[in-house]
Amino acid sequence: MDLRPIGVFDSGLGGLTVVKEIKRLLPNESIVYLGDTARVPYGTRSKKTVTEFSLQNIRFLLKKKVKCIVIACNTSSALAYTRIKVETSVPTFDVIGPGVRAALSNGLVKRIGVIGTRATIGSHAYKKAIHKGSSKASILEVACPLFVPLIEEGELKGQLIEYTVDKYLKPFIQMKIDILILGCTHYPLIKSQLLKKLKKIRIVDSGKTAAKELSIYLEKNKIVSSKNKKPRDEFFVTDLTDRFIKVAEMFLEESLQGKIKKVDIN
Amino acid sequence: MDLRPIGVFDSGLGGLTVVKEIKRLLPNESIVYLGDTARVPYGTRSKKTVTEFSLQNIRFLLKKKVKCIVIACNTSSALAYTRIKVETSVPTFDVIGPGVRAALSNGLVKRIGVIGTRATIGSHAYKKAIHKGSSKASILEVACPLFVPLIEEGELKGQLIEYTVDKYLKPFIQMKIDILILGCTHYPLIKSQLLKKLKKIRIVDSGKTAAKELSIYLEKNKIVSSKNKKPRDEFFVTDLTDRFIKVAEMFLEESLQGKIKKVDIN
Repeated sequence: MDLRPIGVFDSGLGGLTVVKEIKRLLPNESIVYLGDTARVPYGTRSKKTVTEFSLQNIRFLLKKKVKCIVIACNTSSALAYTRIKVETSVPTFDVIGPGVRAALSNGLVKRIGVIGTRATIGSHAYKKAIHKGSSKASILEVACPLFVPLIEEGELKGQLIEYTVDKYLKPFIQMKIDILILGCTHYPLIKSQLLKKLKKIRIVDSGKTAAKELSIYLEKNKIVSSKNKKPRDEFFVTDLTDRFIKVAEMFLEESLQGKIKKVDIN
Repeated sequence: MDLRPIGVFDSGLGGLTVVKEIKRLLPNESIVYLGDTARVPYGTRSKKTVTEFSLQNIRFLLKKKVKCIVIACNTSSALAYTRIKVETSVPTFDVIGPGVRAALSNGLVKRIGVIGTRATIGSHAYKKAIHKGSSKASILEVACPLFVPLIEEGELKGQLIEYTVDKYLKPFIQMKIDILILGCTHYPLIKSQLLKKLKKIRIVDSGKTAAKELSIYLEKNKIVSSKNKKPRDEFFVTDLTDRFIKVAEMFLEESLQGKIKKVDIN
């Protein structure tokens, strides 16, 4: 048993889709969430900058005495995980490894599509990880830089998101993919739009699979929290506006009024 | 005569539309440009954060011994100009004042539309400035948060930008505005799309009018650069990727390969 909280960070608020899944699977765990809203998005920035920002997030969470850290951001996972692993004194979990393992889980050769930010796709982190697990898989990675701003603006249905989905998914339809990996923690919010276009395709939500691997790890290592302890979640952001609270509530699907604190991590 | 360069900063690269205009009006001036690409966009962030970032930009430009500073960012102008003016030892120019003066220049009572980022519009900086100049003007301000990501993605024509323009401009058509102020230095790139929708409307480009006021100020105060001196421009960013170079070239309309340097201003 380990009563310490689980640390989770993201460039912004998309990582709350991962928090929602952790809370569903591990209802007794306390969470400390950090969203770097003063510098979101990471998906357009360089490896050097994303690594620097990610390490600052890690240092903040370590001060909060977390028992482990989930990198609930695909861009950080893709660009900074190697550095984070070396420099972090508690176990760390990325979202890319679990997403890839879930995609390859039934052992068949597959045509796999991956969507993500420009930085995640540009790093080919998914392609490399998939090829390690299955040399025969065909992989197509497509950067979808407009999905994050559209989702953050609440454009979850209607013409704008439909046109954008059409634009980005066209090559996957031509390739006849079997599986699409959502390589960004914002994307679960437009899953129904993606499915409308890519009928009968299996969609792998990288954040959801990361939460699942985390729960298995905690159980196996007997470091889950006590069933008798009421969890106490803390939400921190590096910049706070009314808009951020609304967007956060959209991702987490619960009220956060008065529950989010602004911190300086710089 | 003053041979020192003109400092210009923006949250990112949109401010290069202002640089282009300064270089057209003042071809002998040297420019030091700073784009805070590690933390772009500012338009979604709080006043406190935008002010802090803006003052860091100012301090960087002052170290470069500039003779004056142009805030080529409407969000910074709207949220941080009062603080910047107090804390800066050289003359500073915002983009909002010049935009408003140009809109009101012919002295008639008008129906004025303003478009900008969420932060610029939320501050009502334009509304307040217009009301100071003309108490009778009717003003409608609309936040257009998707324009910046669309422009940065090069979506300058086609269905996506057309749908977004339709969505945001609808209230202006109903109100029958006479003038539309572009309250963001990115927007000149979609001017033709806006005109397609708002026929016969006068469009005021706030960045362009700021460049004009700057040139008048330099002439009047006899601090223009020598006509015999070849200008030497310097471009700095806080994060550098190949993509940023491409976007910068789109705004400035000249090649910047090898000319942009990454700096740490934090």
